[in-house]
Amino acid sequence: MSDKPLILVTNDDGITAPGIRALIEVMNEFGDVFVVAPDSPQSGMGHAITLNSTLHIESLTNIGDKQVEYSCSGTPADCVKLAVNEILYRKPDLCVSGINHGSNSAINVIYSGTMSAAIEAGIEGIPSIGFSSVDHSRNANFEPLKEYIRVITKNVLEKGLPEGIVLNVNFPKETIKGLKVCRQAKANWIEEFDKRMSPQGKEYYWLTGEFVNLDKGEDTDLHALYNGYGTIVPVQFDLTAHHFIQQLNTWDFED
Amino acid sequence: MSDKPLILVTNDDGITAPGIRALIEVMNEFGDVFVVAPDSPQSGMGHAITLNSTLHIESLTNIGDKQVEYSCSGTPADCVKLAVNEILYRKPDLCVSGINHGSNSAINVIYSGTMSAAIEAGIEGIPSIGFSSVDHSRNANFEPLKEYIRVITKNVLEKGLPEGIVLNVNFPKETIKGLKVCRQAKANWIEEFDKRMSPQGKEYYWLTGEFVNLDKGEDTDLHALYNGYGTIVPVQFDLTAHHFIQQLNTWDFED
Repeated sequence: MSDKPLILVTNDDGITAPGIRALIEVMNEFGDVFVVAPDSPQSGMGHAITLNSTLHIESLTNIGDKQVEYSCSGTPADCVKLAVNEILYRKPDLCVSGINHGSNSAINVIYSGTMSAAIEAGIEGIPSIGFSSVDHSRNANFEPLKEYIRVITKNVLEKGLPEGIVLNVNFPKETIKGLKVCRQAKANWIEEFDKRMSPQGKEYYWLTGEFVNLDKGEDTDLHALYNGYGTIVPVQFDLTAHHFIQQLNTWDFED
Repeated sequence: MSDKPLILVTNDDGITAPGIRALIEVMNEFGDVFVVAPDSPQSGMGHAITLNSTLHIESLTNIGDKQVEYSCSGTPADCVKLAVNEILYRKPDLCVSGINHGSNSAINVIYSGTMSAAIEAGIEGIPSIGFSSVDHSRNANFEPLKEYIRVITKNVLEKGLPEGIVLNVNFPKETIKGLKVCRQAKANWIEEFDKRMSPQGKEYYWLTGEFVNLDKGEDTDLHALYNGYGTIVPVQFDLTAHHFIQQLNTWDFED
């Protein structure tokens, strides 16, 4: 067993996605890599876990030559739970998730399987980073991202992260000017449902929509991405709105 | 069209669960009720949304006599998106989700379909409350919860909620002593995977685990629940760990 860092790599686009391949390449420079990733795409799975069904794991020996890889039938959060509790011989020193094909900036963090995997690792007490690129395409060029992934990984391995915090990193599609620490922008999806008719004459819907930035702040992830910077948002999973507790205690809850 | 509040009711246990029936009964005292809930149980779905599949809605006329009900093939978050954007004639004045058969205290808020529906409504700018009972059983007695649901609903309809905040309400199994405003306890699942063999000789897993409270604070939801109180935790969906931004800006991200 080596004394190099043990690194768990996962994603939500599935184990064969180009994004996770690029991330695995960079992680091999830092330590011993284990891959446990979904066997099929799991975009938009949020923090779903598999409670009412069984989970399957398959060990893959023919994909990567440098590391052990497992595909899992579950969600990204399931992958992390299985990796930490069943597959790995010890708790990993780092978990990285991605590189997601598509942005997880602003409110997207909450729908993101990529970030849920990273958050799940954070809940397990593992320093953890989610990486995403604004470029959705399967042919996205991940090469220019690697130097930035390297420098962020180096920092986290050296300094760790405070308990209860993981990092959400997003990269723009164009040339990257540098990295900026940001807050999550207030930006929402204005949903539009595409209503269609099945060959059997039954109505059905596709979820579509437009992403609208409502936040004029210059310290947001969206602002930085628009201006060509990679963004680092520290993300917490204590969802308590502590600042509202005092006010809520003035409410009258007696009948 | 009435001038009574328009109330959207949803859940994650599915439209036929006793919990949502109890919640609908209480909401009928306050306004015009629309029900849009999953057509099957969706526990543990977190904030999943349906991106890679189609969505179906069915109008049900034979379940409730007092209100319009729709079942939806999607997740709890899908239900809220469809309700607000396709089904309802105007933005609701309130969204309530539950009553969940099972606790959504502490970290469970992040895995919870019930709370994701409430959070999705919050993202859409609708005052929103998730209700859950520690009692998992299908035969849980929801009668004693109703007076507390009433008083919380009355407060939210009168005072509203600040932008970006929804309420996570949990009830103990035993007699309820009153309500307490709390923070989310630091308590984790210690996962244990139950490994089995299929009749075809293939290994598979069930996710199980033990819930462990690591938090000695007396201001937590778990502490209050253990002591017989219903709990109200204000929950936010800006996940930025604002308190770590300053520190993160001291890190060296140059190569």
